[in-house]
Amino acid sequence: MGWAEAFPRKGLFVATKLPVARPRSVAATKTAFTYPAETAFAVDKRQYLFDHAYIARRETLVFNDGFPDTRLAPIDLLIREYRRFGNYRFTAKFLSYGPVQGSENLRNELARFLNHSRGLQVSPANILITKGAQMAMYLASQILVRKGEEVAVGEPGYLGASEVFRAAGANLNFIPVDKDGMDIDAVEQLCKKKKLRMLYVIPHHHMPTTVTLSAARRQQLLELAKKYQFAVVEDDYDFDFHYASSPIMPLVSVDTCGNVIYVGSFCKTIAPAIRIGFLVAPVNLIEQATWLRKLVDRQGEQLMEEAMANLLRNGDIDRHLKKANKIYHERRDLLCTLLRKELKGVAEFDIPAGGFSLWATFGDRNVKTIAAGAQKLGLGMADGDDYWHQKPGRVNGVRLGFASLNEKEMVEAVGLLKKAVEGA
Amino acid sequence: MGWAEAFPRKGLFVATKLPVARPRSVAATKTAFTYPAETAFAVDKRQYLFDHAYIARRETLVFNDGFPDTRLAPIDLLIREYRRFGNYRFTAKFLSYGPVQGSENLRNELARFLNHSRGLQVSPANILITKGAQMAMYLASQILVRKGEEVAVGEPGYLGASEVFRAAGANLNFIPVDKDGMDIDAVEQLCKKKKLRMLYVIPHHHMPTTVTLSAARRQQLLELAKKYQFAVVEDDYDFDFHYASSPIMPLVSVDTCGNVIYVGSFCKTIAPAIRIGFLVAPVNLIEQATWLRKLVDRQGEQLMEEAMANLLRNGDIDRHLKKANKIYHERRDLLCTLLRKELKGVAEFDIPAGGFSLWATFGDRNVKTIAAGAQKLGLGMADGDDYWHQKPGRVNGVRLGFASLNEKEMVEAVGLLKKAVEGA
Repeated sequence: MGWAEAFPRKGLFVATKLPVARPRSVAATKTAFTYPAETAFAVDKRQYLFDHAYIARRETLVFNDGFPDTRLAPIDLLIREYRRFGNYRFTAKFLSYGPVQGSENLRNELARFLNHSRGLQVSPANILITKGAQMAMYLASQILVRKGEEVAVGEPGYLGASEVFRAAGANLNFIPVDKDGMDIDAVEQLCKKKKLRMLYVIPHHHMPTTVTLSAARRQQLLELAKKYQFAVVEDDYDFDFHYASSPIMPLVSVDTCGNVIYVGSFCKTIAPAIRIGFLVAPVNLIEQATWLRKLVDRQGEQLMEEAMANLLRNGDIDRHLKKANKIYHERRDLLCTLLRKELKGVAEFDIPAGGFSLWATFGDRNVKTIAAGAQKLGLGMADGDDYWHQKPGRVNGVRLGFASLNEKEMVEAVGLLKKAVEGA
Repeated sequence: MGWAEAFPRKGLFVATKLPVARPRSVAATKTAFTYPAETAFAVDKRQYLFDHAYIARRETLVFNDGFPDTRLAPIDLLIREYRRFGNYRFTAKFLSYGPVQGSENLRNELARFLNHSRGLQVSPANILITKGAQMAMYLASQILVRKGEEVAVGEPGYLGASEVFRAAGANLNFIPVDKDGMDIDAVEQLCKKKKLRMLYVIPHHHMPTTVTLSAARRQQLLELAKKYQFAVVEDDYDFDFHYASSPIMPLVSVDTCGNVIYVGSFCKTIAPAIRIGFLVAPVNLIEQATWLRKLVDRQGEQLMEEAMANLLRNGDIDRHLKKANKIYHERRDLLCTLLRKELKGVAEFDIPAGGFSLWATFGDRNVKTIAAGAQKLGLGMADGDDYWHQKPGRVNGVRLGFASLNEKEMVEAVGLLKKAVEGA
């Protein structure tokens, strides 16, 4: 069977028992066999619920799903921190196994940042540093949801989160979303019928429609969560980006009962590739999520976490957010102006109060057709399929990410969109 | 109930419906309530199987579990790469969402590196870049193991892996390990009784005893895996560190059937905190592991992956490994010499052919007592508990990590160990 031990090893208690090996040259080995194409054992096949195929097409002009402009990423600040590690006398202490819960410095700074910016009242013990909000949602749902348990999500909603919940074994329940956010009356009806374990909500700017959960519904949701004792996973991925006078404080800031788990990240603050996120929760949940985190990947990137702690401490993050908010605010306004001008009476939208994208509908014109046409003209955009779990009740709308397009690109993109709409 | 929306928001369709908010000052909020101590909903409590509490005590002298010396970490090389990103014209392309499977550059370089150093014949499509070997094991076992399926692990063994398998729902079966590695006859007996889904093995230097799986048993294991169609997870975490003339090629290098999954990392090459690991497998398994990876944390650190690709391409990793092997070889020899001299007739051990630690027993003397005594003298060491899943059959042994101790520290550590042994 050609055991490939080319040279008998001079180990202490093994060598004597080793059969004489037949040396094989690398060339001979290469022709002898190739790596197996398939496993010998069965592997269950699962499907992506959705995949942003157009993300990869970076060269073309794209109305993306709502990403920050990586050209504005303060990568220089990050590199400055990394250079410091090169000279750091104590860098060695960040190079070994470290705290599973994440850098103590970062958790301290983050507690301060969250309490200051969002009205939270948490301590570093309430924070688990994760790889993006994605991992925070993964860990929370794996800890909370057992097979067959009921989870409520918005329809339309963020299918990336739904896939995480489904992988945890959740039975998904779809809650209609209107201009005031999730329909909490529908949640109440659900609670009367089933034992709800978890509800996923993006109150600040709902994905995909960017609507904000109204104050009345927020109260209603917290009361329901208290009454029926379910967990609310509050995804606040774009809290730091708001163009109206004041952001709305998250649900977690007024949760006195321990119903709300808070998820966020810096992936939109620095760049999507800088994977620092966080899970905020009462300590008993943080402990369990930390247990699982240890199994998943042991710990985060300590150098990155220390760098981020410094950037928060120095006020670099605050300064960058101020600068970025100004630019994205201008880009949002530019897109709205251009859509009103170029697609008057065709494109309908409400001005998003924050975030990176705008929810548009085009009357009777099919978004799929528009997207296909745009694609041919060199403009990438979603085709409206990625926001819906179910067929019935679909609205013919699409997210137009404005944050990654500068003035010249935005003008060009809206011009191409106009052509595509006219051809649809 | 004090909804904390201090300022009504000027959103388009929300503001009009917002109830008049009662402004609260930050100070008032702070005294109004504190963050909940516990969740309102139930959270199942799980326990760590084991925890290296002594890792945290870095200031004291420690015989650790077998970690590289972070003082020798080529952090300058890594920082050099990061500085390059600061000037890079194309850094922006690594700052957005990227390939879930990992950097294409790194997968190319890694395929070359693995094929060259380990006799593998894999393509980049066979590689998933992970956060350390830990994540590779997590993903593989989550994909492969369903609740109640049978998994075989060595006894003694690496409990960190066992915990991952247990979390996937595995029913663990303990296979005795002797001087030739895992007892494959025992595996065969197991296969006759139960449907084995997966076997975890560290053939190069078994954890904890550092023994090497003999050639005969390797053949036997591959034949069994083929016959009974189970997956072999080969953990080769310290392949790159061997002090005998030649390393033994991994099982995966001669697997023509697709039974072996190969797991490794650079966490021992650069530093434990630099979390670049990999899973090598046939494409059908890589696809499924990539699906799960997307749910867990979307993607790895692209900048780190690009940096590592450059270090591999430049030959920096090869040069560092050569240098580090020389130093750790000397440290291994020094520890053996000192133990022979200072603990003659008391400490028994075989010279480890590679890796970062030595497996020692102390006759009738209890390792727990020795470790407690050492602790009092200022020497950290394991107490022998972390290697066994079960009570019966335990051997009174301990791993003494030599790689992180320089000559002065090693002399001091063995001196303290001697005192502790004499006092036991």
